[in-house]
Amino acid sequence: MDLDTTPTLLVDRDILDRNLARMAESARARGLSLRPHAKTHKCVEIARRQLDAGARGLTVATVSEAEVFADAGFDDLFVAYPLWVDAARGARLRALAGRVRLTVGIDSETGARQLVEHAGTTIGVVIEIDSGHHRTGVMPEQTGTVAQAAHEAGLDVRGVFTFPGHSYAPDAPGSAAREEAGALATAAASLRAAGIEPSVISGGSSPTALLEVPTVATELRPGVYVFGDAQQLELGAVSETDIALTVLATVVSARDEIVVLDAGSKVLGADRAAWATGYGRILGEPEARITALSEHHATVQWPNPSTRPDLGQRLQVIPNHVCNAVNLADELITVSGGTVVERWKVAARGCNT
Amino acid sequence: MDLDTTPTLLVDRDILDRNLARMAESARARGLSLRPHAKTHKCVEIARRQLDAGARGLTVATVSEAEVFADAGFDDLFVAYPLWVDAARGARLRALAGRVRLTVGIDSETGARQLVEHAGTTIGVVIEIDSGHHRTGVMPEQTGTVAQAAHEAGLDVRGVFTFPGHSYAPDAPGSAAREEAGALATAAASLRAAGIEPSVISGGSSPTALLEVPTVATELRPGVYVFGDAQQLELGAVSETDIALTVLATVVSARDEIVVLDAGSKVLGADRAAWATGYGRILGEPEARITALSEHHATVQWPNPSTRPDLGQRLQVIPNHVCNAVNLADELITVSGGTVVERWKVAARGCNT
Repeated sequence: MDLDTTPTLLVDRDILDRNLARMAESARARGLSLRPHAKTHKCVEIARRQLDAGARGLTVATVSEAEVFADAGFDDLFVAYPLWVDAARGARLRALAGRVRLTVGIDSETGARQLVEHAGTTIGVVIEIDSGHHRTGVMPEQTGTVAQAAHEAGLDVRGVFTFPGHSYAPDAPGSAAREEAGALATAAASLRAAGIEPSVISGGSSPTALLEVPTVATELRPGVYVFGDAQQLELGAVSETDIALTVLATVVSARDEIVVLDAGSKVLGADRAAWATGYGRILGEPEARITALSEHHATVQWPNPSTRPDLGQRLQVIPNHVCNAVNLADELITVSGGTVVERWKVAARGCNT
Repeated sequence: MDLDTTPTLLVDRDILDRNLARMAESARARGLSLRPHAKTHKCVEIARRQLDAGARGLTVATVSEAEVFADAGFDDLFVAYPLWVDAARGARLRALAGRVRLTVGIDSETGARQLVEHAGTTIGVVIEIDSGHHRTGVMPEQTGTVAQAAHEAGLDVRGVFTFPGHSYAPDAPGSAAREEAGALATAAASLRAAGIEPSVISGGSSPTALLEVPTVATELRPGVYVFGDAQQLELGAVSETDIALTVLATVVSARDEIVVLDAGSKVLGADRAAWATGYGRILGEPEARITALSEHHATVQWPNPSTRPDLGQRLQVIPNHVCNAVNLADELITVSGGTVVERWKVAARGCNT
């Protein structure tokens, strides 16, 4: 590979395409729409490949992400977030709604009224429910109340969505998927009791999206599945051969069973869930662990000192949480068959507003 | 304040200037040079203020950070990192050395030879030692051996440096500062025994830099002191009135004793040391804790439900590790006396190579 410096983010395009096809096929086989979350890759080229593989539209986390993808020609965008819409954000939403099919999340009557006041009624909404992650979202049985208020305020209530983030723990994906299915069923019934027929019932996370749990959902919104990461590995959601993104790093210091790499938290992100076994994994060396992380250093405990890499050698690091690693980079170096084929811009990097 | 969107990074310029003056005065009173680490702010305007306050030069972490500050006119730069210098990085170092006084770290004989092979001998080096953090650096008593090899390879060995990163733990700053002082003394003696008189003996971290521990050091390299952060607060190195950087965030969801803010790990960084009490702190609400962090959500446990902020209210979040928060932003909004006065570009954002 013609890569003249490290650290840098490498995407294996062949593995990426396989991951896209597998998720698209699984959704198709179950009769579910796929609306992948673009926050993971923030990359126009990957979003195009997702649509080419059969995705119906994109999910984004922020209005500024929506603006980037609208500028790139994507015309069906869902901001899966309970936006607080003031005058400035309202003006941006109005502008967006004039050129794409736009849907946003709400999780309160106040939020719905605020949206109408500043952005008008041309934007579709879906009600966020809490299916067990206890972050944002109303209780499933309150869905109808919030939906009714939004409807009375003039909004087009399109349905309900949730993020089963509690799937991110060992042995949790199965039970989280079942809780999610139950919560979505309750929420859909609550909507119908309020006289609103949902056109979308949306759920799914990368650890749960391929589990064939019976559900009333009509749509899946996984994000991380495109690349995989060390969290997904440790949750058992993917295997190492599914990892499409790694950070190429160089050994800058070595002693005994320790190597230090030039990729730290400013490249990998500092994510480390309580259950994670380290700050990332090393491709091809499943027993190695990143035991400490500074901004520009990853300290790796090597399992066998006799095979320890030496100064100047390059390793591929699997970040714990790939969404945060991508957001730290300006571009992704794309390889296929061991050759650099394309450089993709992280077009929505830093789009937090 | 005229701030039309959140999340955004606010810098209180008055507090910043007070922090700069205090560190500069402390160093001056002890006869130490100050070479602050620019990785924290990555910002030309702040580096200028540091030099105006009496700093001698800048420390940076990467060659690309050095390039940004050299382009901005800074002429004395130290890359405090044991660089692995291949042909590409060597060419960049040669170009830099042609226009600034450049010093880089080394921690091995192999690294020294590699530097000479690809970047020549016009770059000064200082030997990194391990003073207890166990990341990079040679043992203090080996300093002379590495220095001798570097000298024989033709390099100008200017001295020794260390980072007492083990100061980042509760009750650790004092003992870490004493270990650092001992290690620097051993390293300086080892250098002199090898026939090399150090012109610089460099140490210091923000938790230790203001401690008046007797030391042979000639130079301090603190970084975080410019802004402070929740880690420094919890280590007792600063108080809340010293916090110069906060993230302005909006309440997007609220229930019972929980508020959810629109600033997550893509704004604050995901840093959470094992000893930290949360993912960040709320300015003016010392008992509130960020108990969970997603990419665009901070879940805050509020101490008193009756004073809990409501939807749309704005709070100022103190990030755990300000260096990583700054590196996620493109600009810093600077305020003075409650008014926005300047917008400073994070000029070296993402400079990881």
